[in-house]
Amino acid sequence: MQFTENDFLSMEQRYRASFFNSLGGFKSLVLIGTTNSEKQTNLAVFNSLMHLGANPPLCSILVRPASVERHTYENILETKCFTVNHVNESFYKQAHQTSARYLRHQSEFNEVGLTEEYSSLSIAPYVTESPIKFACELVQVVEIELNKTLLVIGKIKEVVMQGDYVLEDGFVDIEKAGSMTVSGLDSYHKTNRIARLSYAKTDSPLKEI
Amino acid sequence: MQFTENDFLSMEQRYRASFFNSLGGFKSLVLIGTTNSEKQTNLAVFNSLMHLGANPPLCSILVRPASVERHTYENILETKCFTVNHVNESFYKQAHQTSARYLRHQSEFNEVGLTEEYSSLSIAPYVTESPIKFACELVQVVEIELNKTLLVIGKIKEVVMQGDYVLEDGFVDIEKAGSMTVSGLDSYHKTNRIARLSYAKTDSPLKEI
Repeated sequence: MQFTENDFLSMEQRYRASFFNSLGGFKSLVLIGTTNSEKQTNLAVFNSLMHLGANPPLCSILVRPASVERHTYENILETKCFTVNHVNESFYKQAHQTSARYLRHQSEFNEVGLTEEYSSLSIAPYVTESPIKFACELVQVVEIELNKTLLVIGKIKEVVMQGDYVLEDGFVDIEKAGSMTVSGLDSYHKTNRIARLSYAKTDSPLKEI
Repeated sequence: MQFTENDFLSMEQRYRASFFNSLGGFKSLVLIGTTNSEKQTNLAVFNSLMHLGANPPLCSILVRPASVERHTYENILETKCFTVNHVNESFYKQAHQTSARYLRHQSEFNEVGLTEEYSSLSIAPYVTESPIKFACELVQVVEIELNKTLLVIGKIKEVVMQGDYVLEDGFVDIEKAGSMTVSGLDSYHKTNRIARLSYAKTDSPLKEI
């Protein structure tokens, strides 16, 4: 099957959104926890988390300012921090439900039934139910002029895990933690490891590690 | 378990890279196909593909110019195009092997044993073995000043699939196509759908769709 620009143009808006959102492959599934200066909390599901670098540890989320993600973005600008929380099978429906258009004074924590948790290192709320989570300090917002989206970049200040998921070489076994992945806007998946592969070299074969 | 900035600083470099690369959750696993103006092709595995928008259809990859990804980036600058190819279980080891440091005159297609395929709409090579692939035109490069990485943004011009993976609502069933996901730098996973969930509203319960 082949699709070209004429096909893209003839797609109905929601069809096109679903098509291109799923086309890019599996994505990170996380809940972003924020608060404003009056301690009104917000929780929103994101599938755009990107690893930007390890030293310093940086990650980003992509925000469309006119969307339901607006509360998250306003809170991050106001308090300069946010948390990133992995999602597992026990609460992925609640995670999805955070994408409904709740009002400013409603906290998604209450509305969907998830629990706020605080660390001394961040005023943004963590999700207690989440097996792996980390807190970020806002360091930069980069506007993508082409479509007015915003790349919100955070520096990781703290990492919290419910169990010991870190292997000898630093790899975090997120499958063992039950972390899920998402495709498109609404399809939730568990994973099944096929293998870890050794560092690739031109002069020796790969090994499973 | 809790980790803070002092822990991050004390991590050995490869340990830290592995830790933070896996911390962000599951990622898209794709091969980026490029060529230069002398038809010297290149193929490189990426885990940073991001969906940027559906109208126009935009995606990005993150490039570290000083790394093995340099050939990919130079080719994209020279020819203004690249292909994105999903990876399935039949060739994920070859995909990983493309990350070895091959020389400029070596094509990873030959070195790892994958097949070039061409469309009339792009001079960048597709991977024949890939079940879902698309061709992009370079539209912008955004530098992330914080760590000198580059967000290379492409506009999708063509989509090619080996089978009919598109559902009635536009959703592309990439799990059915066998597309894999990656965690960290080297852990390859298949997926198992738990559910697709209906559009979330504040006044009605979610349904599985």
